[in-house]
Amino acid sequence: MKRILYDLAAADPALRFSPYCWRIKLALAHKNLPFETIPWRFTEKDKLAFSGQTKVPVLVDGETIIHDSQAIAEYLEITYANQTSLFGDAASRALTYFIKQWTELTLHPVIVKIVLPDIYPQIDQNDQPYFRQSREAVFGKTIEMMAAERDSHLPAFDSILAPIRRTLAAQSFIAGNAPSYADHIVFGALQWARLMSRLTLFDDQDAITLWMAALLNTYGLSQ
Amino acid sequence: MKRILYDLAAADPALRFSPYCWRIKLALAHKNLPFETIPWRFTEKDKLAFSGQTKVPVLVDGETIIHDSQAIAEYLEITYANQTSLFGDAASRALTYFIKQWTELTLHPVIVKIVLPDIYPQIDQNDQPYFRQSREAVFGKTIEMMAAERDSHLPAFDSILAPIRRTLAAQSFIAGNAPSYADHIVFGALQWARLMSRLTLFDDQDAITLWMAALLNTYGLSQ
Repeated sequence: MKRILYDLAAADPALRFSPYCWRIKLALAHKNLPFETIPWRFTEKDKLAFSGQTKVPVLVDGETIIHDSQAIAEYLEITYANQTSLFGDAASRALTYFIKQWTELTLHPVIVKIVLPDIYPQIDQNDQPYFRQSREAVFGKTIEMMAAERDSHLPAFDSILAPIRRTLAAQSFIAGNAPSYADHIVFGALQWARLMSRLTLFDDQDAITLWMAALLNTYGLSQ
Repeated sequence: MKRILYDLAAADPALRFSPYCWRIKLALAHKNLPFETIPWRFTEKDKLAFSGQTKVPVLVDGETIIHDSQAIAEYLEITYANQTSLFGDAASRALTYFIKQWTELTLHPVIVKIVLPDIYPQIDQNDQPYFRQSREAVFGKTIEMMAAERDSHLPAFDSILAPIRRTLAAQSFIAGNAPSYADHIVFGALQWARLMSRLTLFDDQDAITLWMAALLNTYGLSQ
């Protein structure tokens, strides 16, 4: 059976930067499910037409087509119930939901202010007009204005990450001795930041760097 | 057996405002353990001398004297292992540790900027000189300066709470269908804010108000 993930790519097809796609790549690895990825660009709507979607992640799992990272994670948890759980028990799943909300409502908004100006030049030329227009409409300023303000957001980024760093000083993963989907969610955000920023956001000895490496290593992944 | 919690009080001995003491009151209720509280003021060091401590919470559990909210919670979990767990399984416990760090490093720092000027006039006169001196040293500004800046911190408070409100839109408690110590930790912070602020921080229909009421109601507590 073929298992294919449509995965957001930059101009360099090896540069995969979607935080939501990273969640699913880690979730698939956590469930020990082999998969292939197809690089996808923002404007390649035709490539996703078969699914009825206009955004990734889209997972094709044999005969099943499923989209939206949360729906995909829940599908994997149910469909591959005999494999290691992504969420743990009911309380862990609920606490993971808070971490998802924190990631999307607190962490993502500061990351986007730091990395968006660095994403623009790295995406495919065909994507750039769409990206510029849609993001400038959302933020009410040009990419160049965002670039000029970029460094002013670094202190907030550090403050927001303080609870993660403090947690990782006491335990190997956010979910304890072994990673769970809570780790995947936060990793997705920080991988997006790390891959696309021209700044060195995390130095070699940063607890975040070590945790990200350990997480990838758990699943035998690189990058 | 007597079980006594030393509990931070304002000038009004019924006004108990320590976020850390609230954690323990909820944890004791969660474990279904009857207890009495003794109101304690910041400068009543003599009252705690028996314990070797200078701060609350201090719990006297029969022959055992224990201090520090995290240590007390862990003591209760082990000592009363047959009662409902505070933390759940190992993954839940690890995720709860992140929520503790988030509460202390992200939520508390904005709450203190909003409520500190309102705490000062409500504490016992004997506590006021100590409180002014220690807090003004920490924040590098007078209480009156903090009062003047208070309202400027309200937007950040709302932003920080967005993940909590979004979580509570989908589930009854932070830990899911039933509360756990993760709920107690966040409740402690918001109860401190709500009891001491002269502003109405949460209106009647706010998801936070409803959750706080439901949490107290679960344990048959009021306030």
